[in-house]
Amino acid sequence: MVTPDSIQRIVFVGAGNIATHLAVALHGAGYDIAQIYSRTEASAKALADRIGCAYTTQPQEVTDTGDLYVFAVSDDALAPLLDRVSARRDALWVHTAGSLPMSVFAGKCARCGVLYPLQTFSKNRMVDFAEIPVFIEAGNAADADLLRRVAGRISHRVAEISSEQRKYLHLAAVFACNFTNHLYAVAAKLLQEHGLPFDTLLPLIRETAAKVESLAPADAQTGPAVRYDRRVMQRHLDLLDDPAAQEIYRLLSQEIHRFATEKQS
Amino acid sequence: MVTPDSIQRIVFVGAGNIATHLAVALHGAGYDIAQIYSRTEASAKALADRIGCAYTTQPQEVTDTGDLYVFAVSDDALAPLLDRVSARRDALWVHTAGSLPMSVFAGKCARCGVLYPLQTFSKNRMVDFAEIPVFIEAGNAADADLLRRVAGRISHRVAEISSEQRKYLHLAAVFACNFTNHLYAVAAKLLQEHGLPFDTLLPLIRETAAKVESLAPADAQTGPAVRYDRRVMQRHLDLLDDPAAQEIYRLLSQEIHRFATEKQS
Repeated sequence: MVTPDSIQRIVFVGAGNIATHLAVALHGAGYDIAQIYSRTEASAKALADRIGCAYTTQPQEVTDTGDLYVFAVSDDALAPLLDRVSARRDALWVHTAGSLPMSVFAGKCARCGVLYPLQTFSKNRMVDFAEIPVFIEAGNAADADLLRRVAGRISHRVAEISSEQRKYLHLAAVFACNFTNHLYAVAAKLLQEHGLPFDTLLPLIRETAAKVESLAPADAQTGPAVRYDRRVMQRHLDLLDDPAAQEIYRLLSQEIHRFATEKQS
Repeated sequence: MVTPDSIQRIVFVGAGNIATHLAVALHGAGYDIAQIYSRTEASAKALADRIGCAYTTQPQEVTDTGDLYVFAVSDDALAPLLDRVSARRDALWVHTAGSLPMSVFAGKCARCGVLYPLQTFSKNRMVDFAEIPVFIEAGNAADADLLRRVAGRISHRVAEISSEQRKYLHLAAVFACNFTNHLYAVAAKLLQEHGLPFDTLLPLIRETAAKVESLAPADAQTGPAVRYDRRVMQRHLDLLDDPAAQEIYRLLSQEIHRFATEKQS
């Protein structure tokens, strides 16, 4: 196998959704995944079996033969792990978190960076990594170049951004993905309670997402709130028997109207 | 031209987004659009020119030669118009509104119904009507059959539902479309304020929408709120300087966590 660049052996610390999708993609791109660490044996084994590599559940048994260590664990788990893993100190260490600065690595290793794929990953759902934007950051230009090449083997949308920008990108992603998905969940619950199948909404959900590929979201807005049709909004509030759903309805309707008013002025 | 069924001449009362898309689709399916009414001349003329038909801005000049009258106006505008239009009283009158019962026609005409296309329409954006679910309702079985055939000429997803079900469907659509689009707008604003292009989020938005084609929304949920990662959430709240955006963040995070907890129990 042709070595794509000077990163050859990659070690994954973490075996959750991001680790799984990233490890599978990097393995598919020809990298040698040397080992998977997870404190949960079932997760470590599942990912290691999928790739055909070694695994461990002990931080002190993490191999020191890696060129790149990818820490894909929850934000809270990262700092304590950095002190305990027996990773090679002069290898490149990166995390995959949107909201943690690169500076979490300060004093822990010689070379550090971030490799942040902006996507929502669920374990049993395949994704086409090539279309996923991957944002990188590194402590020096040579390592930024290395990360750019590694990321470029799995995605054709690689960009370098600062820790500061990445924080806001992650926050925006929470609105556009996690919060949006919750609204789908509220809609699904309403339909279920009234004997209507959720898939009725799929063409609407698809078009709502597709519209913002060509229109700014503020220009794509439709519905009773943008017209501030009080009668329709009151009828809708009367239909909702869940106080939290009412509160979401009121707050988002007010905000839609405020955005529309500010756009006009 | 072969007459598709006993509806031949259709009159549109209204020339907004829904009227425009529906009239263009029905015209394309071979129906004779006899006339467009709108109180706004520019709108009436624009749609009439597109189809090549007559228009009027006077309710009392609405032609009485229609077989089907489609009232596609705002909910508030409908009731006053029903008293003033010179439409044929024994033709079939339908509205296109999600949240108005069919009973708004009581005492106004002999035959009534509803033709509700579940989609978000913007004037300058083409939509493929064939994929849009169209929900019909009628005062009797013969008219339901007529409407099913008319709707079936432009969409292959036609279903009959009651006024009661349609109310909830419209409410669910407000969550899944209008409110979702507002979250895209909040995300767009955050990115703009920090020098990041909105199209960075498009693959994420696409995947978030695509996921619920195969997973229930509650099972597709990811992000800090479903894990209830307080540190990440607090950092995000600290980044938001708009109190309304903070309130959306808090409320939706609480609700994501509540849904996740209820799912487990």
